[in-house]
This record gives sequence, C-alpha cells and structure tokens, in this order.
Amino acid sequence: MLFKGKELSMEEKIIHSIRGLGIDMIDEAKSGHPGIVLGAAPILYTLYAKHLKINPKDPNWYDRDRFVLSAGHGSALLYATLFLAGYDLDLEDLKKFRKLDSLTPGHPEYAVTPGVDMTTGPLGQGLATAVGMAMAEEYLGTYFRKKEAPLINHYTYVLCGDGDLMEGVSYEAISLAGQLKLNKLIAIYDCNQISLDGKVDKTMIENIPQRFNAMNWNVFIVQDGESVDAIDNAIEKAKTSIERPNLIIVNTTIGKFSKYQGTNKAHGTPLEKDDIVAIKERMGLRPIPFIVSSDACEAFQAMIKERTEPIYKQYKELHEKLKEDVKAELEKLEQKDASIEDVMIDYQIPESKEEEIRVTGGKVLNALAKNHPFLLGGAADVSTSTKTYLTDEGDFGPQNSLGRNIWYGVREHAMGAITNGLALMGLRPFASCFLAFSDYLKPAIRMSCLMNLPTIYIFTHDSFKVGEDGPTHQPVEQLIGLRSIPNIEVFRPADANEVIGTYKYIATKKEGPSVIVLGRNKAKIQENTSINDIQKGGYITKKEHKNLSAILISSGEELEITHEVATKLEEKGYDIRVVSMPSIERFKKQPEKYRESLLPLGVKTFVIEASSSYSWYEFVYNQKYLITMDEFGKSGSKQELERKYQFDVESIENRIEELLK
Amino acid sequence: MLFKGKELSMEEKIIHSIRGLGIDMIDEAKSGHPGIVLGAAPILYTLYAKHLKINPKDPNWYDRDRFVLSAGHGSALLYATLFLAGYDLDLEDLKKFRKLDSLTPGHPEYAVTPGVDMTTGPLGQGLATAVGMAMAEEYLGTYFRKKEAPLINHYTYVLCGDGDLMEGVSYEAISLAGQLKLNKLIAIYDCNQISLDGKVDKTMIENIPQRFNAMNWNVFIVQDGESVDAIDNAIEKAKTSIERPNLIIVNTTIGKFSKYQGTNKAHGTPLEKDDIVAIKERMGLRPIPFIVSSDACEAFQAMIKERTEPIYKQYKELHEKLKEDVKAELEKLEQKDASIEDVMIDYQIPESKEEEIRVTGGKVLNALAKNHPFLLGGAADVSTSTKTYLTDEGDFGPQNSLGRNIWYGVREHAMGAITNGLALMGLRPFASCFLAFSDYLKPAIRMSCLMNLPTIYIFTHDSFKVGEDGPTHQPVEQLIGLRSIPNIEVFRPADANEVIGTYKYIATKKEGPSVIVLGRNKAKIQENTSINDIQKGGYITKKEHKNLSAILISSGEELEITHEVATKLEEKGYDIRVVSMPSIERFKKQPEKYRESLLPLGVKTFVIEASSSYSWYEFVYNQKYLITMDEFGKSGSKQELERKYQFDVESIENRIEELLK
Repeated sequence: MLFKGKELSMEEKIIHSIRGLGIDMIDEAKSGHPGIVLGAAPILYTLYAKHLKINPKDPNWYDRDRFVLSAGHGSALLYATLFLAGYDLDLEDLKKFRKLDSLTPGHPEYAVTPGVDMTTGPLGQGLATAVGMAMAEEYLGTYFRKKEAPLINHYTYVLCGDGDLMEGVSYEAISLAGQLKLNKLIAIYDCNQISLDGKVDKTMIENIPQRFNAMNWNVFIVQDGESVDAIDNAIEKAKTSIERPNLIIVNTTIGKFSKYQGTNKAHGTPLEKDDIVAIKERMGLRPIPFIVSSDACEAFQAMIKERTEPIYKQYKELHEKLKEDVKAELEKLEQKDASIEDVMIDYQIPESKEEEIRVTGGKVLNALAKNHPFLLGGAADVSTSTKTYLTDEGDFGPQNSLGRNIWYGVREHAMGAITNGLALMGLRPFASCFLAFSDYLKPAIRMSCLMNLPTIYIFTHDSFKVGEDGPTHQPVEQLIGLRSIPNIEVFRPADANEVIGTYKYIATKKEGPSVIVLGRNKAKIQENTSINDIQKGGYITKKEHKNLSAILISSGEELEITHEVATKLEEKGYDIRVVSMPSIERFKKQPEKYRESLLPLGVKTFVIEASSSYSWYEFVYNQKYLITMDEFGKSGSKQELERKYQFDVESIENRIEELLK
Repeated sequence: MLFKGKELSMEEKIIHSIRGLGIDMIDEAKSGHPGIVLGAAPILYTLYAKHLKINPKDPNWYDRDRFVLSAGHGSALLYATLFLAGYDLDLEDLKKFRKLDSLTPGHPEYAVTPGVDMTTGPLGQGLATAVGMAMAEEYLGTYFRKKEAPLINHYTYVLCGDGDLMEGVSYEAISLAGQLKLNKLIAIYDCNQISLDGKVDKTMIENIPQRFNAMNWNVFIVQDGESVDAIDNAIEKAKTSIERPNLIIVNTTIGKFSKYQGTNKAHGTPLEKDDIVAIKERMGLRPIPFIVSSDACEAFQAMIKERTEPIYKQYKELHEKLKEDVKAELEKLEQKDASIEDVMIDYQIPESKEEEIRVTGGKVLNALAKNHPFLLGGAADVSTSTKTYLTDEGDFGPQNSLGRNIWYGVREHAMGAITNGLALMGLRPFASCFLAFSDYLKPAIRMSCLMNLPTIYIFTHDSFKVGEDGPTHQPVEQLIGLRSIPNIEVFRPADANEVIGTYKYIATKKEGPSVIVLGRNKAKIQENTSINDIQKGGYITKKEHKNLSAILISSGEELEITHEVATKLEEKGYDIRVVSMPSIERFKKQPEKYRESLLPLGVKTFVIEASSSYSWYEFVYNQKYLITMDEFGKSGSKQELERKYQFDVESIENRIEELLK
C-alpha cells in the first residue's frame, strides 16, 4: 500500500504526531491506555503550544506553570507531548514506555521524568493536589512580592477525567478551591462520556456545570474537543478570572480515529495492529512506528520558545537582582529543600511537669512556626482538639494570602492531597486530625510516601484511652497501617522532651513524610527521656542495675505506665531495663551494633503499646510478650477501659511477672 | 428559687423533655455534644411522633423505617428520644451515658442500643450507608412483591450535619443516590452554620440546594427549625417524591437556649451547671436532673402507637399468610442471618489447569450468585478488570430494581459504605476494586468490622506483580493494613481450589467481614491445594519426607513459586514442608495443637509473600527468614520486577539455602 499523506496544517501535524507516538508507545509496551491519547491530544497541544509558561530545558524553573495529569493513565499522551516539546526525552525513552527503570513509567512519576510535576494514577489525587499547588502559588507569590521580589506568578493546570470527578477527594478539594477563590487554578475536564466499565451515564448523570457553580467555580464549555481555537479561547477566558477557580469542560471522543472510538474498548488495552495502521492513515501519518517529522518537533518547540523565552529571561534577570537573603530563600524552594535549619524551640515545661501531650504538641508546633514562614497547615475542623492552630499566624484565605492556618473543614482526604501539593511547591506543610480518622486520608499519605515529600501529619486522640467517644474514635490498627507504608517515619512521643525532639528532628528532614501521634491525656515528664535520642528511634530511659532480668519496650502514652511497672518489678527483685521507642522506622535505620546494645539477644523482652500487635512481633519471642491491643475498644472512661483491657499497672505487672518466674 | 413553670403545649413538653434529658446525660457523663441535642430536638420529635414507621416494642421489625443519625455525636439526642418513645431503655440507662458496657455508648452503636440502626460517629458514613439501605429496600421490596409478598415498603431517613456534607464519601453517595433515583431516601440536614472549629462559612460556602439539584435530588427548606409544622410539611412532601432522593434543609440553632447558642462553644463540651439551670428555666422545665414528666412520655408513646400499630398488625397478618418458602426467606432477613446454605459451586477447572486467578474468582462468584438471590454487589468502575460482573443478573437501577450488578462508578469509598448498608438490611453484598485502592474505602471497611457485618470485599491486582502500571497500582502495605483490623478475615487464595474453598467458607459465615485478594496473573492449580482446608487458614500442601529441614509458608500467587523452590531445595538434599496460608486470621483461630503440628517449634521457617513483612514476623526467627516486600515497586514487566526484587526461583532458593547451611 502506498502511503497517501494528506495535506496537514502544522497544528494538525503536531497533534497527530503526539497521537501517533502515544499509540506506538502503548503498542510497543503491550499495555497502556490509548483512549485518552487519541481523545485529548488537542488539549495537550493547546496547553503546551499556547499557554503553559515553561522552559523544557529547565523543567524545574520555579515559576513555571504547573501541569498535573490527574488522569494519570494518560501517561503516554504526556510523554509524547513532552518529547515533542523538547524536554530531555528521546525516542529511545519513549520506546521503553512502562519498562523497568525507564524515564517513561506506566503512570507519571514525580522526580523521574522531566516535565512531570507530580505522581498520578490513583484517581482524584491529581486534581486535589493541584488545589494545594495553587494555594502555595498564592501564598508564595504574595510572600515574595511583599519582599519586593515579584517572581512568583503562575497558573496551575490540571487535566482530569470522569473518574477524577467521581472521587470524593476531588469533590472535597473542588469545594475548598471555590471557598478559597483560587482564580489561578484551571482544571480541564476531558469529557468523553466513557469510563473503564462503559458509558459514564451508567454511573454519573450529574449536572457538572451546576455542581461546579454551586461551589463557586467558573465553568466554560468547549463543544468540539478537536477545535484548538475553542480550547484556546476557553483557557484565555479562564486566565482572566478574578475570584473563582475555573473548569473547562472539553467534549472529546475517547479513542478518536480508532475503530473503537467512543467506546470503553478504547480505554485501557493496546489497539490492534490493523487499527493502528488505519488510525495513522486517517490522520495522514505514515504507518511506521516511532516515526515523527522533525519539522513538527521544531515548530512545536519554536512556538513554546518564542512565547516563553522572554518571560524566562525576565525571571532570571529579576533573580539576579534579588537581595541575598531573599535569594537564599527562593533558592531553597528551587532546590526542593524544605528543611529547617537552626531549629529553636521556645517551650517552657510547665511547673507541674505534666501536660496533655496534644497541648505540648501544639505549643512546640507554634514555637517552631514562629521563625519559619514556610511552615503552614491546618486541621480537618478539629484544630481546637488537635491543638495545631498557629495562634500568631492568621488564617489563609482570599482576605489573607499570608495566613498560615488552613481551614480544611471536615475534608480529611483533600487535606492530605493538598498537603502534598503544598510540599511539591517547596513549603513545609502539616495536616492534622484524630488518629482514628487518618484512614480517611490514607490514599493521600501513600502519595506523600511515593513522592517522598517532607509532609508532616499530626494525629491526636491516640488509642482506646480516648475513652468515652467509643470504638469509632479509638484507633487500634492505624499505627501499624501507617508504619507499614514505605518511606514513612512514624513518631509516638511519650512526653514533652520527646515531642520537642520529634519536631527538632523532623524539621531538619529534607524529604520523606513524618507522622506524629499524640494522645489526648495528660503525660508526666519521664525521667531520662531525651530530646536528642529521638532520632535514633529507640533509647534507654531506665537502666538495669546489674543482672538484666527483662527489657520493657514502650512508646507514647504507655511509657509512663511502663516505668511504673518497672519500679514495681524491681521492688520484687527483678532487674529491669526500659527502652522508649517512639519510632520503629528510625530504630531500624540505626547500626546493628546500636540496636543489639539496646536489645541484646536472649533477654526476655516485652512491649507495652495500646495498639495492634503486628507492629511489634519482631522484637519478642511470641504473642505472650506483647501487651498490646487487638480488639476494638468501647465507650467508657480511660480508667474503666484500662482495667477492662488490662492496661493498668497491676495487670501488666502480673502478666510480665508470670513470664519472668 | 421557686420554679415558675410556664404553660407548655404537649409538643413543647416532649421536645423540651428530650432536650432536658439530653443535656443531663452529657452533664452526668462529663462529656458529649450538647449543641445538636438542643438544636435538633424538634426534628427528632417530628420524625418519631409523626413519621417513622416503627414499633418501639419490636425494634427489629423488618419493615420499619430506618433512621440513621449520621451526625453520630448527637447520640444523647437519639437516646433521649428513644427513651421517651418507649424503647427498652430506662432512666438508669440514660444515666450511664458513655460509661462502660452501658446501653448508651458515646456514639450510637449497632446491636447495642434498641432503636439504633447503625453505628455512626465517623462523619459521612451514616449518610452514605443510608443510601445502601434505601437500595436494599428497593431491591427487597420488589423481590418480595414479585413473590406476592408486599411486606417491604418503607423509608430510609438520615439526620446529617455540616460535617457529613463536607466529607467526600457523602458526596459520592449523594451522587449515586441521585443516579439511582432513590425516592424513598429522605436526608435531613441540621443546618446550624457551626462546626467544631467555628463558623461553617469559614470552610463551606457551597450553595447546597444547587449542589443537590445538580445531583438529581429534591431540596426542601425549613426556615425555622423550631417549627414542627414546617418540618412535618417538608417530610410529608418528600415522601411523595417519585424519582428523586430528598434533602430537607432545616435551619436550626446549635445549643438553642444555652448562653453559648449559635457558637461552637456549644458543640462538643458539657454545658456549665448554671447554664443548664437557665436553659431548663427558659424551656419551662424544673431544674432537676433526669426528671421527666410521665404525661410527656405517655403522650409521645401514644402518638407513635396510634399511628403505627395498625401498620404493624397488618404486617404481622400478611406475614402469617406467607407461603412457607417465602416466609423462610423473610425470616432469615429478620434474623439478620445472611449465611448461604448448601453452597453449590459449579466451576470447571480449565483443561490447561491454569487461569488468571481473578478470572477464576469471577467464575466462582458467578456460580455462587446463581442460586443465591441476596448476593449482589459491584465494583468501582473496574468490574471489567476485577471480573466481578454477574453475567446473568442484570444491572441494578431505576429500570431494574432486581438487577444485582451495582454500578458504583469511581467511588470506592461510597461503595464501601453502601455495602455496609446493604448488609445491615440482611443482604449479602460484595464490593470490588484494585487492592492498592482498598485504601480509598478503608474507613468503610472499618465500619464493617465494627458492626461485624458479613460483607465481602474482593480486591484484585495484588502485589508488585501487577507490573507495568507501576507503584501507584502495586500494593505493598495494604494486606497488613487489612489484616490488622479487628473482626476481619483476609483470604489470599493461591489457585482455583483455594478460591472455591474461600467462597464456600465465606458463604456460610453469618457475620464478620471477609476480604478476598486475587492476583491478575495466571495461576497453575497446585498439587494438594484443598477446598476444605481453607477455613483452617493454613495447611500442608507439600509434606516433608523424613527429616524436616525447613518449612516454607506462603500465600496467594507466591505458592506456585514456593513449590518450585521446595523442589529445587529437595534436589539439593533438603527435606522441605510447604504450608499454604491463605488466611492468617483463620489460622490463629485454630486449636494450638493444630497450629503446632503444622509449624513445630525449633524448625527453620520461612515466609514467601510479596507484601509487607509486618504480617509475618510472628512466624519466623527474624527478618532474614522473610522473603517479603517492604518498598514501593516500579513500573516494569512482572518478570523484570521478580528479578529486581529477588522474587524469582533462583534468588529465593539461594536466600533460603544460605540460612539452611
């Protein structure tokens, strides 16, 4: 068959080249999602050619527009576009799509591919995280303008699909974005009426414009998703919004040009070979894999360069002229270094030497925030209870872009995703709710871990000792659920010293999420707790005298009772060591020698923690040595429950003595 | 001070008695939420006096209207109302509010308090679960009408607050309820403009009527939440809806009559003593705790009786006349017994003796569904991938109330909560998505566990062996996250025999949630896998010959490779036992003797499972004996990843041999 190329405009040539490359990648990988590649290529083209403020040669340029592909299964579309746009990807990289250690993994991954601004795939996360990015732009733009450094002023774009809009997390984030009047957020909805299982109207008949209007968004509708002009116009209008975020609904055809176009058969499996040939013919491309016309590449790159080079130069010039201290601040952002140096925490231990540990946490957080303007965050309508309100820092919102308290409302999941967005922009965000409800944001915490972002999660109301609120509010399995996520560090400090130590250590981290778990009850300052040893994860808070009989490991609220038990046992002639272990993950990272010195083999070792056993088996012989909690609690006073679950001094002492005899 | 009672109407007397008792309970307990008690008492009064089809003497009457207090922190309001309405609660029970083992725990608990239809507290769950209850009513009403047994015909009511409406799960469920045109669902929104942290407009400025209209709901507005007539009228109108669910927005005053009324100070802490006295005076009640006028009780109970007794009698009469088989079916529902007897599973092992295990799962599920009309469910837009579509059972929806495939859309969290609602109504629901995204519905799974409901969760796409989709889609910590929830049983079957065994066992369970985890890859039928031994959790699939050298424990997809490793090691002279352990929870419930016979002390024991180590420490000496996965995976082919993570036969064999030498 002779190839009969039709006359294509340069615009068509570029768009079809993106499409062609995308489906070639999927064909080569034998897996992927061709539907969105064929359907949404004109959107990506319009964005990159006409709007995105970017520099493909400097993909981390701080003031670039952010682009989040919330429909992360469209990775081939994104990679093909990035390649054509001149990012540091070559055809070989595209051929390795979905192969191990390539620059083009199955879903977009942050810090892997140049031009990818966040990891996406789990639906809803991208849209919600983009809200956080737009909030950070608002905060930092104002922050630096106030310092006469007007360098930060960009848009945040998201491309999302039906799936994103059905997820609860996106609803929460959309509601918040409207609340906060994030006018520089532009979400583009690839509306193709088809999802994995079939027609969207089988699962979503919402009136989308009405829904977004109800949440204070502008809505623009593009009837023909093939029309670059229509998409361009809508984006142009959205950019002029003064006080509403923007949704552009673009009606597209999933799998455009395929024999399966408009059906879910085009969604998630590679196209057949003959279909690929036919598609290319319909588009006027040669039916040879990975062939791309160099004039399309050049023209696309020239468009981008012409439009953005002057702005980039201007940024660099302004940057040069910055005062040293401002420049240093900006450079930390540019280097994605959110660590806080010279941590000074001005916290006064109360005379009584006891305090609700969540209260201590709040004081220490406030002290830390005082000198660190990039530390900000909020709670899911429970800052009054989690004590995470920054008393001197004002509330973030349309009236005060420099407020550092974010009012998330009862939207835990969006809180988590937005926290990721703030961190991706270089801020040091914290988020807070009750530990039992950390489940609500678990998917977002996992994203933190996947991207290894230096986020801080503060979860209070730890263990059955929450008391009267009952089992719905009493965590059991949450600690192990968190500890088992790769890259995380969970801290369960026992008293004010350990709270200070935890915050001091966390502040210096450049990357990796941290969780701080705090009880709601009063905690006495324990003898020998340490500020500096926290980062070792575990350390001795009570030495044995001579002939070690047993080691008691404990964490958090239970350390106090563990010391009491140790005293009782010593009165009976046992020689006891107590190890406080606020962080299992930190402890495991210590040298073997240190770990063995703390927990020598052959010594009877017990763990006392009011949480699931699963965290602790590796430290003991068997279940009998675990004084832990593996059932749901009940509504009742802390004291009643301690007796019921044998977490009072006497019961613990008896259980241990039984095994020491 | 002399008490000057003012003239109260009987209606006022009852409403104020509810208020008075509610705040007394909170005062006595020294904890609780007085704001909603004082604010929403007229709503509860109107519902119970004028609308709810109930019989306080038979609180489990199957065709009663369901009432879900989604704002579960209003438990005192509910208990006070139930007491006055004549449920089996006395003043002593109210005095024990929030005390251990009382009938009046801190948040409403299913199967604890007569008249409580579900456990609530975690916001959003109640509203979303009520959607499931309304779906079940639709299904079962039609089902029994078709059998000439028109006994099921009732409404589902929910009372929710601002917090419920902010949660993503409720948005998802609201969208679905509109989609499914659940006209007999009536949600009442206690709109008091105040949440825990302060004024709601700091976190939610949504146009609520517009939002609900966009999702196909009727919206009614009651301007004055003190007007019983206005509330009554709105409910009356809602009950006539033909094809939309109903939202009634009732404007109330949080903490009505308190000095803190209209502020968040009235939300979640007990009122001061003088305030309680003043409130009672304003209401015309005597300022004595737990005093309630008997004529208020009698009048309230008489109203309910007069209205509902004839309907109850009619139900009982119809019930008497039922054909035996229909009666038996209904009685199982009434007894909350969702077990399936005489499980016949017509599944043909393919000739090749291998099959994708998710495909096997789908076939077995379909076979099970064939003879069991109360088994129904769906997936979060991935039934095509999880293979859970019931091919002969039609789609549930306004056109087909007897369809048994529920199209949840990409709404995992609502899927979980709705599954709970279906189970609370006595159905046997399943829900399905990819294992990595089980995180999205974790809070709902926890509710399943708390209520010990016989729900079935089917999670496919297990472990890094998902391959090309990359780390966002590859579970690592999800298995331990699920296994650690109290009351759950997780199954990770290895082949068709184990899949059949898992479904057979699960079908017979009367209570308690089950999770089935299935890979997406082909699995060979293994020698000696057993259908019947599944319920023991672990059993021997390869016996040693004489002198046991080592035991290899494995589960799911890894059992195949474990057998291959065993063969290789035997060729080298080691004598190996293989234990398949599809369910740790089931195994732990076996007699010690059985467990020790399988895993005798002193034998080197290894575990091979491509998932977090935390599940398995208790079975081995230390980490070295665990061939598990504790980091995020990568995008790549299954084969590439098996080599990278040393999950190929050779690597595993070498690691084990090293420790056997």
